[in-house]
Amino acid sequence: MQRAPLKHCKECGTAVVYRVPDDGDTKPRAVCPACHTIHYENPLNVVGTVPYWGDQVLLCKRNIEPRYGKWTLPAGFMELNETTAEGAARETVEEAGAQFELQGLFSLLNVARVGQVHLFYRARLTSDQFAPGTETIEARLFREDEIPWDEIAFRTVKETLDCYFADRRSGHYGIHTLDIT
Amino acid sequence: MQRAPLKHCKECGTAVVYRVPDDGDTKPRAVCPACHTIHYENPLNVVGTVPYWGDQVLLCKRNIEPRYGKWTLPAGFMELNETTAEGAARETVEEAGAQFELQGLFSLLNVARVGQVHLFYRARLTSDQFAPGTETIEARLFREDEIPWDEIAFRTVKETLDCYFADRRSGHYGIHTLDIT
Repeated sequence: MQRAPLKHCKECGTAVVYRVPDDGDTKPRAVCPACHTIHYENPLNVVGTVPYWGDQVLLCKRNIEPRYGKWTLPAGFMELNETTAEGAARETVEEAGAQFELQGLFSLLNVARVGQVHLFYRARLTSDQFAPGTETIEARLFREDEIPWDEIAFRTVKETLDCYFADRRSGHYGIHTLDIT
Repeated sequence: MQRAPLKHCKECGTAVVYRVPDDGDTKPRAVCPACHTIHYENPLNVVGTVPYWGDQVLLCKRNIEPRYGKWTLPAGFMELNETTAEGAARETVEEAGAQFELQGLFSLLNVARVGQVHLFYRARLTSDQFAPGTETIEARLFREDEIPWDEIAFRTVKETLDCYFADRRSGHYGIHTLDIT
């Protein structure tokens, strides 16, 4: 999801102009002609998990746009006052109502086109019972040969699942960094 | 650096109110009473490198606040339209004027207190000549026993340097995830 550009100053409400600030910066920013506040727009982090139960992985069928009805790993925008791991755990509770032990960082995927960085942690499920929240139609476990590859919501989820099952076969879990173009 | 809260709507300039939106959200957001835009404030990524030349590491003496005059690894806020690796490389050019080959992700440090995630990549220097930018007083190579540990600008830089020299001694470079409290 690409964000809408800022139109008004967040400090005083005046309509901003886009120009390169006079402070040595090299990029155009939204600058307030009244109070001179410079507004920076930066990438967002999306944090989530690969929750697994034996040889199965938990996917959530999306009850929201974008990609309504498609399957995803539990993930969402990182919030202030939490770490990447805490955000990943929070989203897994909110979207799947899952019980789990959070493990290490598993993948970091850049989606520069939309200004996002996606980070997934492995999560060992401690129950195969789920209580999906309002953003999820259904939460379900899939073995590798059951994954609905054509119905996966996001490229970052597909790539992370690919890495997960490859690592599972090899018996060694790494940390994977990928760029989605 | 903690950011100032948003006071005016970025779409229409009306003064916002902070409340939990009516869309199922659970956290207070800056909501516009006129056009109903909901504003989300999220963590920022700081991206940088550990540039090394043999057994030496490149540090930059800061010419800007915060921590003017203290030593740091080259790093800065990630921008839109770049990956974490591209941002790390850009900052290394801007702050140190270094020539290098960018290598793998080395550390990911959460600083939840200020809403930041810091990511450092290893960078193999291909020259020991530097051309520091306006944000840097001096760019200099240090061996481990020369590092000015009491004059390091940020905890994330100190932790990353600790990990780097420990890995260098062991001969194996991992990816380190830490939380700074």
